Formats: sequence, structure tokens, C-alpha cells
Amino acid sequence: MSTAPRHPRARDETWNEAWNEVVRHARAAADARIAALMRDEPDRRARLSVDAAGLHLDLECHRLPGAALDALLALAGVADIAGRRDAMYAGEPVNFTEGRPALHVALRAPAPRRGGDGSTDDARTSDDARLRQIADEVEHTLARMERFCEAVRNGSWRGASGHAITDVVHVGIGGSHLGPQLACEALAACAHPRLRCRFLSNVDPQAFERAVDGLDPASTLVVVASKSWHTLETARNAQALRRWFADAGIGPGELARHMVGITANVDAALAFGLAEASIFPFRDWVGGRYSLWSAIGLPVMLAVGPERFRALLAGAHAMDRHFAEAPLARNAPVLLALVSLWNTLALPGSTEVVVPYSDALRSLTAWLQQLQMESNGKRVGRDGVPVPWNTAPVVWGGAGTDVQHSVFQALHQGTSVHPVDFVVVVPARDDPEGRGSALLANALAQREALLHGREASPPAGDAGEPPDANLAWLAAHRACPGNRPSSLILLDRLDPQRLGALLALYEHKTATLGWLWDVDSFDQWGVELGKSLASEIEPLLDPARALPDGLAPGLRALVERIRAARAAPR
Amino acid sequence: MSTAPRHPRARDETWNEAWNEVVRHARAAADARIAALMRDEPDRRARLSVDAAGLHLDLECHRLPGAALDALLALAGVADIAGRRDAMYAGEPVNFTEGRPALHVALRAPAPRRGGDGSTDDARTSDDARLRQIADEVEHTLARMERFCEAVRNGSWRGASGHAITDVVHVGIGGSHLGPQLACEALAACAHPRLRCRFLSNVDPQAFERAVDGLDPASTLVVVASKSWHTLETARNAQALRRWFADAGIGPGELARHMVGITANVDAALAFGLAEASIFPFRDWVGGRYSLWSAIGLPVMLAVGPERFRALLAGAHAMDRHFAEAPLARNAPVLLALVSLWNTLALPGSTEVVVPYSDALRSLTAWLQQLQMESNGKRVGRDGVPVPWNTAPVVWGGAGTDVQHSVFQALHQGTSVHPVDFVVVVPARDDPEGRGSALLANALAQREALLHGREASPPAGDAGEPPDANLAWLAAHRACPGNRPSSLILLDRLDPQRLGALLALYEHKTATLGWLWDVDSFDQWGVELGKSLASEIEPLLDPARALPDGLAPGLRALVERIRAARAAPR
Repeated sequence: MSTAPRHPRARDETWNEAWNEVVRHARAAADARIAALMRDEPDRRARLSVDAAGLHLDLECHRLPGAALDALLALAGVADIAGRRDAMYAGEPVNFTEGRPALHVALRAPAPRRGGDGSTDDARTSDDARLRQIADEVEHTLARMERFCEAVRNGSWRGASGHAITDVVHVGIGGSHLGPQLACEALAACAHPRLRCRFLSNVDPQAFERAVDGLDPASTLVVVASKSWHTLETARNAQALRRWFADAGIGPGELARHMVGITANVDAALAFGLAEASIFPFRDWVGGRYSLWSAIGLPVMLAVGPERFRALLAGAHAMDRHFAEAPLARNAPVLLALVSLWNTLALPGSTEVVVPYSDALRSLTAWLQQLQMESNGKRVGRDGVPVPWNTAPVVWGGAGTDVQHSVFQALHQGTSVHPVDFVVVVPARDDPEGRGSALLANALAQREALLHGREASPPAGDAGEPPDANLAWLAAHRACPGNRPSSLILLDRLDPQRLGALLALYEHKTATLGWLWDVDSFDQWGVELGKSLASEIEPLLDPARALPDGLAPGLRALVERIRAARAAPR
Repeated sequence: MSTAPRHPRARDETWNEAWNEVVRHARAAADARIAALMRDEPDRRARLSVDAAGLHLDLECHRLPGAALDALLALAGVADIAGRRDAMYAGEPVNFTEGRPALHVALRAPAPRRGGDGSTDDARTSDDARLRQIADEVEHTLARMERFCEAVRNGSWRGASGHAITDVVHVGIGGSHLGPQLACEALAACAHPRLRCRFLSNVDPQAFERAVDGLDPASTLVVVASKSWHTLETARNAQALRRWFADAGIGPGELARHMVGITANVDAALAFGLAEASIFPFRDWVGGRYSLWSAIGLPVMLAVGPERFRALLAGAHAMDRHFAEAPLARNAPVLLALVSLWNTLALPGSTEVVVPYSDALRSLTAWLQQLQMESNGKRVGRDGVPVPWNTAPVVWGGAGTDVQHSVFQALHQGTSVHPVDFVVVVPARDDPEGRGSALLANALAQREALLHGREASPPAGDAGEPPDANLAWLAAHRACPGNRPSSLILLDRLDPQRLGALLALYEHKTATLGWLWDVDSFDQWGVELGKSLASEIEPLLDPARALPDGLAPGLRALVERIRAARAAPR
């Protein structure tokens, strides 16, 4: 299963020296003032803003001097980011602890028969037979998805009693959930008017009740998404939905008209009762958190149609080309990663706040939280030894302007500094109440407020006498220190292309950070332990079983308390 | 507006010494192993678990030795937590920068005429004339809310064209949004079957479209919640909804049958077009993030009825009594606050992860994030000088088991340690798929996994020879260091009382932390600057206006880009 890591460049002295140079810059920049850097560095805006695949990225507002950027770029060179990126594109086992490639870029490369974008190293036109085969497989699955989605959308796909589908329930968790939900929400404005999509992830029976509330089984299609088909939450929810259909008279023989599967374990889906024609496969080289582009994107294609789904892929592919071709110093994902790395060093203990100023992108934060924290929440390097630095900071946030009324107080006046990603979508035109302009103005205003702050000087008296002591005291409480960093990503509008580019931007940022930290961004061993412990603990909750003698006293007390609570009348 | 802080105990040498003693313990405990503390301290579970107001709180799994707990309790004594709590209950201006009391506890004290709970220091039976008047006011507003909610619920409240209300749209943001949304979701199982409640907070026009999608104005009731009535987002959304009603033929004369207001600015709501009978007031001593218990809770009462809303208040009041009466060492909010303070010192850079294992409590994290970060995201003490410690850590998380599939990877194997609050609700009985038991088992399993981890030792060979180097390398990648702290809050079930107690527990935890850090937990000056800057920037987005010469180059470039994007054809 595993393979010893083979890579052109291991961490060596040159590499460590480049790291230490960045650390030295970070220490020296402890008191750097962003406003002063903006004033004093004539090439700052040219270096720290970049356009890529239809997105505009502005990284000027960081406590990052130009000389430190040079050191970061040198580190990116020494760490061979370009070589590791190329290895990922070429299908090498960059997921080194599992000995697998991470080929999400292959999922969104243009189909060979469509021509292409003129590049010669494209996966689907590659001479490498394996990549050619992958390209064919990807296209084959896409074509099957398209036929299925067209049938559901045009109403020719019918449920057991002859009804067209009106509601889709997508069942999946983690990587099988957050991407499709984000994309369906982001593109809701161009969704099919008859089809409504809901998402069921949690194993809590109340989540199930909420997901099926008001639905008619006769016109409902369930999409079950699980790479292994055995994910506990998804498996039990799929069973409960199979029962829900059976209770409505839709039995095993008709189940495949109401339930389709997306999985890498086709045999298990067949054993569950699905038909081969209703199973859309994907491969084990697609990581869950990078899987939106695979068959996992089925609910998105159902909602917005094959053409727009292809546009989503094309947008991601445009970012893939930019990441592959732009020099490191003008490479949007690389710059975003370097700034992130810089903030972990220059602002120890800082987190990353992601604030989309767009209701349609309200799930971006949760998706990104998974992407970055599951990918890089690791502590062991390629050499099998704990890495000597801090990896993935916490990612959190929420939609603007909402979060301005909750957490921004702490961002402006708290004792800790947390860089913000402002993800701003330009609204088309104004509504009578000017709400679009207000949204935009707030995004820009928060960035300015974080940057410049507000001084503590109280108003002077009328005749120039010293200000009242009480006013000075109050001014201290009202003061904002400013000099708080942020990035800004601007989308001229939110369409499938730009959405694809935005998500691919963050995917490549995350991979680049993993290479800089020298961890495996594509495994997730840490989620395994809890799963195996849960299967040991679940039987203990059964009141008919005696508790084992060796049970730790604290856990025993909790289990006894829970048993008593479940036995009590309600 | 402001008043110099007057309080029995200012920060003095004794106070600083108690702080320094805690800091010394935190340094000494850098390598403390939780499992060893659990094994070696015989009174640990007795000291670190407590039952309060129907909740069970288990704080055993922290890196907190008994001697450090002693030091923390000494600090709580020296910082006069009891005196400051009593000052809050007595209506003293504990919001010292604004010179106001913070009297959310008065909102949930039992009505005088109903007798009471036997306590003699209850706000509504107090001799203090002002508190008596407040109690009467609270009861008066509650009674008005009850009459209104009964009328809507029993169908006697009719829209302009005679239809009963089927849908409620609550318009509010921040404190006027998160509490009601959380409570409506948490108590959805006992909501009125005819009434559906939606929430509109963001100023993004797409959020508005989503909120009214599919609604019939003739049977829709809009609740506009804004303390000042001038909150930008709420004001513009209220205007848009007034227009939405007008477009459906419901004009100014009938608006009050479809739109009610909750505000401290009754005159402005009248000027907007509401009727006096449709306005439910609350006072300026109710902070937004503590306002669920006031008229802001109207949508909750609409959904679950007056009796259950009173039960919610009673649950919070039970926690208020516990907080007022239990000794500090057995006081749930105080212990929770001391553990939180400890983690900021013993685990620098740590955040607080809040994970409700309950779909119904899925918004708890967002509510708590606002409560803690807006309350204590401050840096200046009562003396007007920056405090010498870190205040409010970042609060984040999400519902379990979902987050196990996204961020828990980083909690188990990341380089940083982030304490988790497991908020666990015991499901009533089992469903055929055992989903309730699976949910519970996962909560307990994650806690165990964080605590005990998994060792890096690879399996030995058959004949006891040293393990294969590749297996050892893989075992290092699979290892989890463990010793990662967590709290567990157990609710035997989720009912209005326990929900009230849970939220009051966290409110008092937050206030206690504010007193320990010596900041004002009840103001929010940091949100003001962004608002004023937004009103300056919004006119710049109008393409008809010339941009001022003094505009900073970076901001100018962004504004020009945005103008061009808005002018481009779509």
C-alpha cells in the first residue's frame, strides 16, 4: 500500500538554509507597517497583484516586505515547487504514504476529441499510455453523467410510478458533500427550475427528517456518494432512504429508478441494490476533498446542466494552466501559498479567516476549511520525522456582511491578528435599495478599517486645552490598532468558469503549502483512529450488554449516564 | 454616554500576583499528560465534573493539574468574580464604556405574580424600584408577545386578504439573527406545523431572493429586528420587503398586518410604516448577542408557542441561579471559564473548537462564536490601558459527525493543539439503522482518540525481528500524538429548558472570562469603524461620480476595476 517517497529533491541543507532565511525575515518584520510598505515600495502593487483565469488577486495588504517576498520565492525554488507540481500533473505518486497519484487536474482537462488549448503537455494528449487511458475513462464517465442528467432534466427519466424527478437528495459527507453543496449554491441562479437539491450528510436521524421533509418519494432521486461505499454516515443514511422508499411502495426492483450511486466500490453498490447503469464510478486517485470535478459533481450537473458543468471544469483547467505555466513570482496559487506561509511565521498563532462577500458563496469557508486543514493538518514529513514547523493554521469565517456583526469585533480590536481573505463578487447592477453596492462597499471598507485602524487620540477641547480625561479613556476603548493583513480576490461575476478557477486556485495553494511544509497533502490517516474507536464504543451503548471490566472509569461513568438517560421516560 | 469605571476591586498587586501564579503553573504544565493526571489525582473527576440546571459538564480531559485549578480558583476569588456577577444581576453599569447595565438575566427571571423559585434576591421581587419597573416592563412585553403569537398560531391573525400566516421571515443580523435561528432550529421538533420560519440577514440581494423564494406575500409575516432600526442590512432588506409586499398589492395601509418590528427605536419603526400594536420594544441594556430572551425571541415564540418559550427562559433562569449560588469551585460557568483561560496560557495560539453532536444544534457554533469573540475580542482594560494578556481566542467548529470528515484530521495530527467542546445530546431511542447510537458513539470515540492518540510503533515481525523500515516509516505517518484536551457537555435530551440552560451557561462563561481579562464584555466599538468607512466608500461605486484626488492608489485601482466590471455586458 505504501511506498517510500521518491522525489527529485529531499530536504537538504540548501533547503533548510532557504527556510531559515525566511524565518530571519519574519523576525525582522515583526514591527512592519503595511501602510509604510505600500508607501515606500514602488513595485509593491505590481508584484503583489496578479490576474489569473479571470480572477484578480490583491496581496498588497500583508506585512510582507519585498525582500521577504524574495526570500519566499527563493524557498519555493529550492523546495522545487515547480518539479513537485509537474510530478502531480504527470500522475506520479505524490500521495506518497498511500503510493497514489492525485490526479484531480486530469478530471478537468479538456476532452482530447475537442481539440484542446494548444498546450502540448496536456494530460489527455500525453504520450503516456496510462494518462491517455485515464483521459478516456474520465470522458467516458462524463458522457454517461451527461446522458443521465439530460434525461432527468428533460423529464424523460421517470420514477417508479411514472413521475418526473422534482427533488434530488445528495447523500455524502466531508469531501463527498462540501464541494457539490458549494457549487450548487454558487450556481443556483442558473439551476433547472424543476429540480431542487438537498444535502444529507450527518448520521443524526434529525438531519434525515429535515432532508426528506415534504418530499414525495415518487418524484425524488437520491444520489449516494461514498468512495468506499462503507462510510458509516452515508451507508446508514442510504439504508434509511432505501427503507423510506420501500415504505412508499418503491421496492428493490424499482430502487434503481430512484437511487444512484457514486463510488469507487462498484461491487458494494451493486450488492446494496443499485443497477450498474445507475452507478457512476471514480478512481482511488481522486481524493475526497478534490472530488467535485469527478462523478461526485453529479448533483451539480443535474442542477445546472452538462454545458455549465463543463464550463466549471474549463475554469478550473484555466487555473491549472496558469499554475503550470506562470513563473513562480507571477503565479497566483504560489503567491497565495507563500503569503500564507509567511503569516504562520510572522504572526505566530494566527488563523486564516475566509469571508466571501456573496450569499452564493456562503459555503466556501467550510469547503476551504476542509481542503486546507485535512490536506495539511499533518506533522510528519516525507522522511518520516516530525517537521520542525507549524503546518495548517485553522481556517474559519463566514459570509460577509454577516460576520461583520459577529466576529469582526475581535478582528479589529482583539489581541491577536488573523489575516482575512476577502472573496468579493461584483454584483451586476443595482437594485432599488442599493444592496449590491452596500455589500461591495462593506467589503472594501472592512479591508481599509483592518489596514488603517483608528487612533486613540481623543478630541481636543475648544480652546486647544488638553482633552478631558474621561474622553481620553473612552478613546482608548474605541481605538483600533490597524495594520491587520488581508488578501482580496475579486470575481467580476460569479459564473461556472470563475467558480472553477477560484476553487482550483485554492486547491493549488493548498498543495503548494504541503510541498513547502514537506507533508503529504493527499492522505488523511488522522481520521482513521476515531472511526475504529467508534465501532468499539457503539456496542457499549446497548443496555443489554454488560460493560467490560477494563473500561476507563470516566468513560464508564459517561456510558452509564447515557444508558440511564435513554431508558428514562420522555 | 460613558462613565469612568467604578468597581469594588480594580486590578492591583494581589490581582497581578494571582495571575502570575496561574502563568507559572501553565509554564510548569507544558508537558502534563492528561492520562497521567486522570490516573494520579484521586479527586480529579469529583472536582472537574459538575451538574447544573439539567446539564452535565465533564472537564476531566484537560491538561490541567489539580494545583493549577487551585491557582485559577484563587484568581477568580481575587478578581472578585462573585462581586462582579452580583453587580451584573443588580443592574450596575457593568458595560462600563457605555455606562449601561447588562440585564439579560432580568429578561428570564420568573414573573413576580407567578410566585417564583423561593429565592429572595430575584430581580423581579427586588426592593430596588428600578429593577421592579424593569420586571414589570419585561412581563408586559412578554404578555404582548404571547397574545400576538397565539393569534398568529391559532389563525385568528389574518393577512390583508384574509389568509392565515404560513411563513415567517425574520430579518435581522448578528445578535438579532443568530440566537433566534439557533433556537428555532434546536426546537424544530416541537414547532407549529403550519408555520415555517426563514431568516434573512445578509444585504446581498441573492440572500433576499432565497429568503422569499416560493413565498406568498398574502400569508407571509415579516419580523424586522434591529435595536437601532438603522442597521444597514436590516433597513435595506426591510425596504425591499416593503416593496415586495407593495408589488403584491399590500400597501402602506395594510403593511402592519404583514410586518412587525422588534426595536429599541419605536419612533423609527413607526416612521417606517409599522403600527404601534405591531412593534415589540426592548431596552438598550439588552446587548444584541444576549437578546434571544427579549422580544428578539419573537420568531421562537411564534414557532414553539408561549409555554415552551417560557420554558426556555426558565431553563436559562435555572442556570442564572446556579451561577449566582454555587460556590466558585462547583460553579459550571466559572469552571468552564477557568479552563478556557487556562488553555490560552498553557496552549498559546490555541483556539476553541465547538462541536455539537446534534443536527438541531448545528448553529450553536456560530452563535457561540459571536458571543465569545464579540464580547471579549477587546484589548483595553477598565483602566484604559491595553491588557497584558491575550483575550478571546478564535471560536469555530461545526456539527458532528460532519466535522470529523473535514477538520478533525488537523485536530488529531496537526502541529497545533485546539481544545474541543463536545456538546452531546442523548437521542431518545434507536432507529432501525442505529443512527442515534452511531452519533453518540462517535462523540465519545473522538474524545478518546484525542485523549489517547495512537502510537507510532510499527508491528514487529513474526519472529520478533525488528520491523520493516518501510512499515516504521508508515507508522510514523499514521501516529496520533494524543493528549489533546476537550470538554464534554451532556444533555439528556434537547428540550426548551435544557437549551436555555446551555445558552446561559455559555453567556456566563463569557462574562466571567471578560472579568478575568478585565475587559468590557458588553460593548463593541470595533464594529463602528467599518460601518462609517462603508458609508464613505459606497458613493465611490457610482460611475457618475468623479473619484476624489486623495484616494489611495490601491483602493482607486480596485474601485476602477469594479466600476468597469459593473459596466460590462453580462
